[in-house]
Amino acid sequence: MRTLSVIKIGGNVVDSPEALDAFLDDFVAIPNDKILVHGGGVMASQTLRKLGIEPKMVDGRRITDEQTLKVAVSVYAGWLNKTIVAKLQARRCNALGLSGADGDVIEADIRPKEPIDFGFVGDVRSVDIKFLDMLLEQGITPVICAVTHDRKGTLLNTNADTIASCVARAMAAIRQVSLTFCFEKNGVLSDPEDENSVISHIDRAGFAEMKASGVVSAGMIPKLDNAFAAIDAGVQRVIIKNSANLGKAIGTVIE
Amino acid sequence: MRTLSVIKIGGNVVDSPEALDAFLDDFVAIPNDKILVHGGGVMASQTLRKLGIEPKMVDGRRITDEQTLKVAVSVYAGWLNKTIVAKLQARRCNALGLSGADGDVIEADIRPKEPIDFGFVGDVRSVDIKFLDMLLEQGITPVICAVTHDRKGTLLNTNADTIASCVARAMAAIRQVSLTFCFEKNGVLSDPEDENSVISHIDRAGFAEMKASGVVSAGMIPKLDNAFAAIDAGVQRVIIKNSANLGKAIGTVIE
Repeated sequence: MRTLSVIKIGGNVVDSPEALDAFLDDFVAIPNDKILVHGGGVMASQTLRKLGIEPKMVDGRRITDEQTLKVAVSVYAGWLNKTIVAKLQARRCNALGLSGADGDVIEADIRPKEPIDFGFVGDVRSVDIKFLDMLLEQGITPVICAVTHDRKGTLLNTNADTIASCVARAMAAIRQVSLTFCFEKNGVLSDPEDENSVISHIDRAGFAEMKASGVVSAGMIPKLDNAFAAIDAGVQRVIIKNSANLGKAIGTVIE
Repeated sequence: MRTLSVIKIGGNVVDSPEALDAFLDDFVAIPNDKILVHGGGVMASQTLRKLGIEPKMVDGRRITDEQTLKVAVSVYAGWLNKTIVAKLQARRCNALGLSGADGDVIEADIRPKEPIDFGFVGDVRSVDIKFLDMLLEQGITPVICAVTHDRKGTLLNTNADTIASCVARAMAAIRQVSLTFCFEKNGVLSDPEDENSVISHIDRAGFAEMKASGVVSAGMIPKLDNAFAAIDAGVQRVIIKNSANLGKAIGTVIE
């Protein structure tokens, strides 16, 4: 089975030209097939404020009314996605930007209105692995933004971590997949104040011990639960690391 | 040689949900392979004004500074392109949205700064017909927005009429291509005040006569010159019609 790297970057990288350029230099150096998934919440919030709209968040998730959807799709699928694609093309990586609507690659259901009405927010229903595989076979690198559709004509704002996870799990049926979440820390830390305290490797037994002993911080538990869920679904390895360290062996490997 | 329809719609269609829905119903009914090219200048200007920026135009062309480029790419490649793609998917047409950077499909050169500095505006250098043909062979309908790139990492605002024309000319090497420009009039009119005075067919001899006799209005002459240039480059037929009449035999055929 051929290998595939699915790599997710957040708004902190895509909103900084310098951080993005350094990250993309490392990204194109990955020799095997790869898919990039990106967020962009910081710029969406900035644009909303410039338009006089105050972003609304509940439990860290964006409430997406019609005006917010327009801005989110414009920023994620428009400016940020095309900026990343153009920068990859300049590095001779043949990138192709995708929302979930493009090629019908990611269908989603609008989230139920209860208990909280998040508006135009989607939960992933399906990923078209044949289409992604066809692109990869053509030497194309898909760059997927945090927008899906319901196949009834409505675009939906969708969490980029979730998209990366769903793409990796689905592609695991036909590829040996590693899934990398880039964030602002160096990995899972044994001391949250010390970026040098990265736990380099966590297996299921170790995770159970860490939870019992309280070594891992409360905020990391959902991330690690999601990582093990991806592994249960066939993903070979999940890596949590700083986007600045994509090309370095600093980070936490979960397998 | 297989046939291909290249169809261009302007901002007046994409900015109106009702007009767009009616147009897309007609578009999906076209049985052969097709490519849609769209503008969106009206919405870009509205968004600029909402952000407190006055759009600058010279000879009907937009002066594109950095802030204007961000808005243009956000609106064209983001909201408008993805709205069209999602609406086509709802009609079971497997659409894929593209800027020129995606798959490196359209490369452009930034326009020389003299005599007028248009800023981030591109003139088309090349169209990747193999990539477009590969998508069409997969049953995919490309939806191309008015954004290109210089392959050095810079996105460029590019006239949608020009993109449609360049795509049609390039594809004429491998397909029997018809090129349709949809606009707000029913076609080339013998009386500019009368929408029922459509000249149904113009050939080169007829065009020369019309220019000599002054039957054709000054504004239509560049459009017709471009149409004949496309035919010289191998496009089989150019059609100028109202977007509301895509499914009807009302319009001007140039061949």
